[in-house]
Amino acid sequence: MKTTIRHQVIFCLKAGTSGGSAEAFLRDGRTLLSAIPGVTNFSAYRQVSTKNDYDFGFSMDFADQATYEAYNAHPSHVAFVRDRWVPEVSRFLEIDFKE
Amino acid sequence: MKTTIRHQVIFCLKAGTSGGSAEAFLRDGRTLLSAIPGVTNFSAYRQVSTKNDYDFGFSMDFADQATYEAYNAHPSHVAFVRDRWVPEVSRFLEIDFKE
Repeated sequence: MKTTIRHQVIFCLKAGTSGGSAEAFLRDGRTLLSAIPGVTNFSAYRQVSTKNDYDFGFSMDFADQATYEAYNAHPSHVAFVRDRWVPEVSRFLEIDFKE
Repeated sequence: MKTTIRHQVIFCLKAGTSGGSAEAFLRDGRTLLSAIPGVTNFSAYRQVSTKNDYDFGFSMDFADQATYEAYNAHPSHVAFVRDRWVPEVSRFLEIDFKE
């Protein structure tokens, strides 16, 4: 098994949050989160399957579990969760893949 | 928006199905599905987040919607769904990402 972890989250945004459009949320997420050390292959997506009820997704890769944990604890991640995720996201599902 | 679609499915396997081990299911899925024309970047994963209740995942990319639809209709995909997926998978969630 490779140690690389593909971390993904699929989510919906609340209507009319102060952060503005979905485009702004996706853009800001990409800018802030992809700059955190150890984050590779960051992508922000529209979730287009009609077979689930989520609208957007972020995906990123970490070389190993320690890098993933450092990301979770990084001040930029903590601030993004506090200032944008909690106020603007209505619901979400996290998915972590290992080969 | 790129036209590339990242198609993913996360799933759980029934216990004690005739197909044998999870490893066999993942290996056969990879062999059969990755050989279908238009499938790129196929990966079979363990889903390791404790924040959802799925155990495995497949991920693949399609260049566009027509290629995705051709995959869905391809005899190898139809046969895999009929002969392995329906008998062996207990529940699943499909996720389709577009940038």
